[in-house]
Amino acid sequence: MSYRVPLEDIDFVLNHVVDLPAVAKLNGFQHADPETVRGVLAEASRFFQEVIAPLNRIGDQQGSRLLEDGTVRTPDGFRAAYAKFVEAGWGGAHIPEEWGGGGLPYTVGIVIQEMFKTANMAFALCPLLTHSGIESLREHGSPEQQATYLEKLVTGIWTGTMCLTEPHAGSDVGALSTRAEPRDDGSYRLFGQKIFITWGDHDLTENIIHLVLARTPGSPPGTKGISMFIVPKFVLDAEGRPGVRNDFKVVSLEHKLGIHASPTCVLALGDGGEGAVGYLIGEEHEGMRYMFTMMNTARLGVGLEGLAIGERAYQKALAFARERRQGRALGEATAESALIIEHPDVRRMLTTIKANNEAMRCLFYTAARAHDFSRHADTAEERERNSELLSLLTPIAKAWATDLGVEMASLGLQVHGGMGFVEETGAAQFYRDARIAPIYEGTNGIQAIDLVTRKLPIGNGEVALGLIKEIADTAANAPQELADLAAPLSEAAATLRQATRGLLDSLGRDPNDALAGATPYLRMFGTVLGGWFHLRSAIAASELLAKGEGDEAFLGSRVGLARFYCRQLLPSASALLDAVLAPVDDLAVSNLT
Amino acid sequence: MSYRVPLEDIDFVLNHVVDLPAVAKLNGFQHADPETVRGVLAEASRFFQEVIAPLNRIGDQQGSRLLEDGTVRTPDGFRAAYAKFVEAGWGGAHIPEEWGGGGLPYTVGIVIQEMFKTANMAFALCPLLTHSGIESLREHGSPEQQATYLEKLVTGIWTGTMCLTEPHAGSDVGALSTRAEPRDDGSYRLFGQKIFITWGDHDLTENIIHLVLARTPGSPPGTKGISMFIVPKFVLDAEGRPGVRNDFKVVSLEHKLGIHASPTCVLALGDGGEGAVGYLIGEEHEGMRYMFTMMNTARLGVGLEGLAIGERAYQKALAFARERRQGRALGEATAESALIIEHPDVRRMLTTIKANNEAMRCLFYTAARAHDFSRHADTAEERERNSELLSLLTPIAKAWATDLGVEMASLGLQVHGGMGFVEETGAAQFYRDARIAPIYEGTNGIQAIDLVTRKLPIGNGEVALGLIKEIADTAANAPQELADLAAPLSEAAATLRQATRGLLDSLGRDPNDALAGATPYLRMFGTVLGGWFHLRSAIAASELLAKGEGDEAFLGSRVGLARFYCRQLLPSASALLDAVLAPVDDLAVSNLT
Repeated sequence: MSYRVPLEDIDFVLNHVVDLPAVAKLNGFQHADPETVRGVLAEASRFFQEVIAPLNRIGDQQGSRLLEDGTVRTPDGFRAAYAKFVEAGWGGAHIPEEWGGGGLPYTVGIVIQEMFKTANMAFALCPLLTHSGIESLREHGSPEQQATYLEKLVTGIWTGTMCLTEPHAGSDVGALSTRAEPRDDGSYRLFGQKIFITWGDHDLTENIIHLVLARTPGSPPGTKGISMFIVPKFVLDAEGRPGVRNDFKVVSLEHKLGIHASPTCVLALGDGGEGAVGYLIGEEHEGMRYMFTMMNTARLGVGLEGLAIGERAYQKALAFARERRQGRALGEATAESALIIEHPDVRRMLTTIKANNEAMRCLFYTAARAHDFSRHADTAEERERNSELLSLLTPIAKAWATDLGVEMASLGLQVHGGMGFVEETGAAQFYRDARIAPIYEGTNGIQAIDLVTRKLPIGNGEVALGLIKEIADTAANAPQELADLAAPLSEAAATLRQATRGLLDSLGRDPNDALAGATPYLRMFGTVLGGWFHLRSAIAASELLAKGEGDEAFLGSRVGLARFYCRQLLPSASALLDAVLAPVDDLAVSNLT
Repeated sequence: MSYRVPLEDIDFVLNHVVDLPAVAKLNGFQHADPETVRGVLAEASRFFQEVIAPLNRIGDQQGSRLLEDGTVRTPDGFRAAYAKFVEAGWGGAHIPEEWGGGGLPYTVGIVIQEMFKTANMAFALCPLLTHSGIESLREHGSPEQQATYLEKLVTGIWTGTMCLTEPHAGSDVGALSTRAEPRDDGSYRLFGQKIFITWGDHDLTENIIHLVLARTPGSPPGTKGISMFIVPKFVLDAEGRPGVRNDFKVVSLEHKLGIHASPTCVLALGDGGEGAVGYLIGEEHEGMRYMFTMMNTARLGVGLEGLAIGERAYQKALAFARERRQGRALGEATAESALIIEHPDVRRMLTTIKANNEAMRCLFYTAARAHDFSRHADTAEERERNSELLSLLTPIAKAWATDLGVEMASLGLQVHGGMGFVEETGAAQFYRDARIAPIYEGTNGIQAIDLVTRKLPIGNGEVALGLIKEIADTAANAPQELADLAAPLSEAAATLRQATRGLLDSLGRDPNDALAGATPYLRMFGTVLGGWFHLRSAIAASELLAKGEGDEAFLGSRVGLARFYCRQLLPSASALLDAVLAPVDDLAVSNLT
């Protein structure tokens, strides 16, 4: 099997680290008790292992292709697999039932997303973008728009895209120039070019609903003049069925380093002269704000690709290390070659990947839990507190995890030695696929700026400092037997507090100094959170062991991974302090000869 | 221009960090005075910039291909460029004149190698492997063999390969099973399969000289039964000209992640039934020892690819950052988009690459200098001391630099944002090409084991500890104005000493504990060496500034890069201490669920 869903790991994090039972007590989620969730996830695991994962390699080899008629052909097998995905209803698992979804908490939905991404990262981008469209329509669409489009998107019968980027407007969305001209019937006609449109065309569904950012006539420049439009591939007829082909076309597909199955389109809107028919969502000039609505979940979704690639890289490397014989292990009398997993250095690579994966998984489920509490908690105060926590965690989850995804894919490839560099082995695909995640949905540099300039200042740092206090408290109250894990976490939390206070000072003095330290600060924060999750995981495992509950070997491995992370990986966090606090002058352009 | 040789950077390191004038005082190198060397390097720079670098992209796109007749066709332009390379004599620049070379010190030769690798990493592998063959023949070939093959290889009229790996004998060379049967005329016939043979066939020259490891009948198992053979593609006729095609063929080329221009061959020896004609080099069963002879320079050569990719990634990213506009810089009143180099986070990425490149360059030139002194110093003691230093530095240079090469290629790609993921930009090629260097010529895990189990114990650690003392002394004696750089170096040197002593203890107690810490130790050692070189560079620049000599802006940038490295990158070294000293039990296989 090319991918085995790590259900035991997932179950442990859900129930013993992020406390799924507490989520199941929230209003509307009472049916999401651990046993029911276990059943759902077991069924989902079979689907993604058996239907989606086997298409990962062929997706890379064939890629999606632009045919002469201007449509996109997906790789062999994708169409049939997507139909099964829609039929099984996995796409809308965590969307409320009133919108046609399964009504599960996002804390469970994110696990299903993780499975899809791990099974096939390029394929999973299609529902990810659809979800962004769903979020925007739920929050800002008119009742008619919701009635027309929402259920079709939730079920996956149609898919969605986000059309933001233009040749000179990437990270700087406000620089876009696609124009939307109003017509008498209340609709608009759009003209312009959009690039990097993920799954911008394909043959999986009978219609595609593009959400397009554009400027109406006389709009102010920059982000304040941007509006959001629904632009369907086929304009709906009077019965709401796909009718006339809209006036835009796929000009080309990008020739990319990885995620070949995902068609990255250049779209020319209004290329035929008439203009692409579009319908304004909500208010004019509010497009940028609407885009931010869906950004938290989209960024978590992209961040999840870091975990997905890490998990996939781990499983492949572990299987190789258990099969491949090379060299002799020290202290073994036998003349036979050793399995390479017997070499400590190979185990170091595998343990590094595994420990980082567990840390990432805890972070994503924790963020998803905050998402659920931010919408379903009983009190406004608790909803607000969780909303702020989610805001803080989102850029960290996106950037820290996707950077790790690249690093873990690289380590996984290294475990294979020379075979890792040969494409047929498959480890190289993860290394190529992983590299996009730190870039799209806001580059990781943008995430760091978001963290420092928008998230850190919430309540003058109280959300960040409150979280750091929680981390320090966990370390201070850890049982004696875990003191060797708690001590480095205490130290790391203290350094993180110092870095946080230093940045808050800089923000008030010279924000460029804060910007200069943003990236190492984000890395530090993510690394410390990883230590916190591992310690909590070790505490939970120790308690279960003391009670004689659960699988002893599995629980022992949680403590072992936590020990490795806290003692061997966590110290790198504190080493970043000087980089966080160094002045921007250390980055003088005059050094760049 | 796709690659500009950084002659100013190179000149500074040669003359002010590694002291080329001292090399020019060695017996036989008196002609290598700084002015002569400057002229040679300027001429070389034009050649590699204009002739070799432009072929890097087409090499990636076309790749070398196996034709139906079993021969390999190199990408367009390679054949003509190689002929010019031979004509100009760059291949043998640092080989003694008695062997047909240019007689320059290796301290200069390594700069020419750097230029070739940076211009075109895949192409440069061909002369690299040829050099390995030259080393082996120089040291162990008979006078007749030397007379027959050496000048042809030194001039590059023929090329060479090293045939070590077999399907089940990669890192574990001793497991190979290719057999060599003696014939009455003193020659041998070889049968077996060799894989991963770099530039194992091509159309650049009229002959290719393979050095093949194989077993003679009745040889003991493992590394003690291995002998080395000369196996020419075309067996020479009585006049020493390429004659009959030898009995081996290229079965296939690997389909690789990168370095597509470099044909990686599977060779079937004796496939025609007769056996491939081979000539024993030196003594039977000494093949493994002979292979180690050429390993130091081959490993330095591969390590150099880390610098090469780092330099190339830097130049491309810097050019992009100076052209691309996106977003607004803080504190700029203008409404126009800023060049992305104005964003501190982009400068952090560029400064990180640049500072690491400078550190790597210093390390390679220092190792090359030790190589020159190990052969040309006046006293046996000084030769021995430099030989030991080179032995110690070699695994660090190979592994630390090639790991950095991957990381810097990844950072360079990130600077490009979405464009970095599009193959046409070219940044992705560096990311793909870079990934092989930590694997071949001994994986980086093997380098770490070599460092800890073979190099560290030299004189019970006195070579390593002596070097660490030198580092600490440099920090202790640094001028007051550089105290903020010297302080972190002092601390890092102290940690490195502690780690070294700890590993020496482990080696005597449980070597598995030492193996478990080998990789973080190597990383720590490389990182601290980088700090040492940067501080020395800053001291030299400060002295020149005080004297009013040299370009003020350039010298200021040396201090700036050193400050960035010592304050922001160097602290990561000390954070590895716990990982170095942790017991092997932290890497228990039971954690790898």
